[in-house]
Amino acid sequence: FFQISPAPSYANPGIMQETISVNDVKDAHKNWCNALLAISKAHSEGGLAKSKPLASEIIDAAYAYQFGPVAFKPTWAYGKKTFRTTKDGALSYFIGDNPKFNDPGFGIGSPGNKDYPNLKNRSPWVKCTPENFAIQIFGNTAIGMGWVHFEAADGYKSKVDKTLSYIRDDEGNLRITVHHSSTPYSW
Amino acid sequence: FFQISPAPSYANPGIMQETISVNDVKDAHKNWCNALLAISKAHSEGGLAKSKPLASEIIDAAYAYQFGPVAFKPTWAYGKKTFRTTKDGALSYFIGDNPKFNDPGFGIGSPGNKDYPNLKNRSPWVKCTPENFAIQIFGNTAIGMGWVHFEAADGYKSKVDKTLSYIRDDEGNLRITVHHSSTPYSW
Amino acid sequence: FFQISPAPSYANPGIMQETISVNDVKDAHKNWCNALLAISKAHSEGGLAKSKPLASEIIDAAYAYQFGPVAFKPTWAYGKKTFRTTKDGALSYFIGDNPKFNDPGFGIGSPGNKDYPNLKNRSPWVKCTPENFAIQIFGNTAIGMGWVHFEAADGYKSKVDKTLSYIRDDEGNLRITVHHSSTPYSW
Amino acid sequence: FFQISPAPSYANPGIMQETISVNDVKDAHKNWCNALLAISKAHSEGGLAKSKPLASEIIDAAYAYQFGPVAFKPTWAYGKKTFRTTKDGALSYFIGDNPKFNDPGFGIGSPGNKDYPNLKNRSPWVKCTPENFAIQIFGNTAIGMGWVHFEAADGYKSKVDKTLSYIRDDEGNLRITVHHSSTPYSW
Repeated sequence: FFQISPAPSYANPGIMQETISVNDVKDAHKNWCNALLAISKAHSEGGLAKSKPLASEIIDAAYAYQFGPVAFKPTWAYGKKTFRTTKDGALSYFIGDNPKFNDPGFGIGSPGNKDYPNLKNRSPWVKCTPENFAIQIFGNTAIGMGWVHFEAADGYKSKVDKTLSYIRDDEGNLRITVHHSSTPYSW
Repeated sequence: FFQISPAPSYANPGIMQETISVNDVKDAHKNWCNALLAISKAHSEGGLAKSKPLASEIIDAAYAYQFGPVAFKPTWAYGKKTFRTTKDGALSYFIGDNPKFNDPGFGIGSPGNKDYPNLKNRSPWVKCTPENFAIQIFGNTAIGMGWVHFEAADGYKSKVDKTLSYIRDDEGNLRITVHHSSTPYSW
Repeated sequence: FFQISPAPSYANPGIMQETISVNDVKDAHKNWCNALLAISKAHSEGGLAKSKPLASEIIDAAYAYQFGPVAFKPTWAYGKKTFRTTKDGALSYFIGDNPKFNDPGFGIGSPGNKDYPNLKNRSPWVKCTPENFAIQIFGNTAIGMGWVHFEAADGYKSKVDKTLSYIRDDEGNLRITVHHSSTPYSW
Repeated sequence: FFQISPAPSYANPGIMQETISVNDVKDAHKNWCNALLAISKAHSEGGLAKSKPLASEIIDAAYAYQFGPVAFKPTWAYGKKTFRTTKDGALSYFIGDNPKFNDPGFGIGSPGNKDYPNLKNRSPWVKCTPENFAIQIFGNTAIGMGWVHFEAADGYKSKVDKTLSYIRDDEGNLRITVHHSSTPYSW
């Protein structure tokens, strides 16, 4: 997770640097959105046959499950299945198709008629925009907290409060270690 | 933020260590609960005159506002006041009494009649129990995610999904840098 | 660079942990010694044909050159070639055989007649013992400072003051980022 | 150890940042030199009465002894007193005047007649210039390795191989955790 500098000289010392920048965090948030839209598009085009392998690849690339339990509290998860500390739980959350979790698959699209767990009339996500309010950098880890705005093809809009924390891996990629997403409070 | 070892010898090298342990995180979560109960008790005994200074002290001791914007999304916060990156916003959230935020003061107790913003028939919190599901340690920072269970004097019960991240300060105290709290999702 | 815990439960939260321990540092120091002895043995048995590929493998496994310039000041290095921030420089230091650096190859064994650069009557290292005096742990990096004692097959003994710093990689291996080795001062 | 940003907005998220920069490391190396020159000047002007309290203040401000054992191998130290993991040992190294260590006091100036331990004809240091060859940044810790060039008032010149590692404290100051200094190797 380092930037390799050119050959050092005394005027220009060699630099080994592990620095997650503010822009890295902003980019990683955008990448999360782009990944969600890609899953949604794949599902609308090719169903689970196309979207499930893609979601699996995305989780492998964007989350830190290979390092241990990820602290993932997805928006729609609740009860005994609130926390998805394994890849299985994350994949089910994004795409469903797992009787162990019985998820509707957030990545598939809007909640439609909200008749959980048999959502109908769903529409794929076509816009996803992060709006960060706080970014914190701690060496090779960082967090961003703010809103993420979603829009589906049929015009349905949604917004969540979202915290994403990252660790920078040896290749320099930011991987999600914490993901807490929740619907805005209403009295 | 280090433990100082006894005088070193070659068999026992001197150790300078910065290590947040799993128990440190569990303790810090319990401390958060104890602090909330202390605020609630102070309010029930002496109103704002007693609880507000205490809440201010607690925030100074337990959060990391002196280091910069804390990523704090409290349970009941929403809209333009969702994120409380300053101490003012945190103090208002815990105890209210600030027209800028118009908070009912979560630390005062149960939501009572839920007639926001003029909650009535509130009861002070008397139990607060964290239940961690994932703990992650990254050097001098760490996070814990899980549930926190609340109970008020009148028997009202509540549960939230909560992520707390910490940084260890130079004195070895864990300070909250990220606090994302949300009510469980329901369809 | 994490330890993966068993499936989490609320009584036993899942743990993602990045913790270089004091024993990790002690082990890494011993591993450095063992690697040196292996190079020396390979050279005494099979010359450069056997020792050079081994030294190359060891550097790849034990140093952090893939992450950027390593801060390596070897005992016998001096002048314009004092600092070996590239793998080439490290390999030459351990085994020689590189006209760019003109090193006698510390890993080959004792300095023999000390007639630099054409050392004769050298003897392979057969003992290498670290004696740490200070160990410091900073999350996924750590350092150890102390003495390393060397003994060659012919009984020649040597001691150096040595600082080794490490970073833990994604696989959990400690890699050397800083290596400052020097002969004890004498008036 | 953070930079506090202005009040956050969604276009400009609040930033809590712990980032030792390359320039921070260069500055800290220069500060070490300036501190040495200040001690030397104080001693030449006012002897131990002036230089010893100053050296004590400088060690308190520039080293990390309050956090635990510092890994300090000073240039002139050897034998059982090679490693100075306590402030006492550092103060003695810089200024002498401690029978426990019997140091000539590097900060006083050039080694003079080198008749250790009763050096005579010493000259105060008047120039000190770091020349970094490798800098590594690991979150709130960092190291710099290279040469430091010294010059005394009488024209005596010296050069050492030096590794300095730092930790950033809560106030944002870099404190030395590792200091390995050695004279260049000669065959």
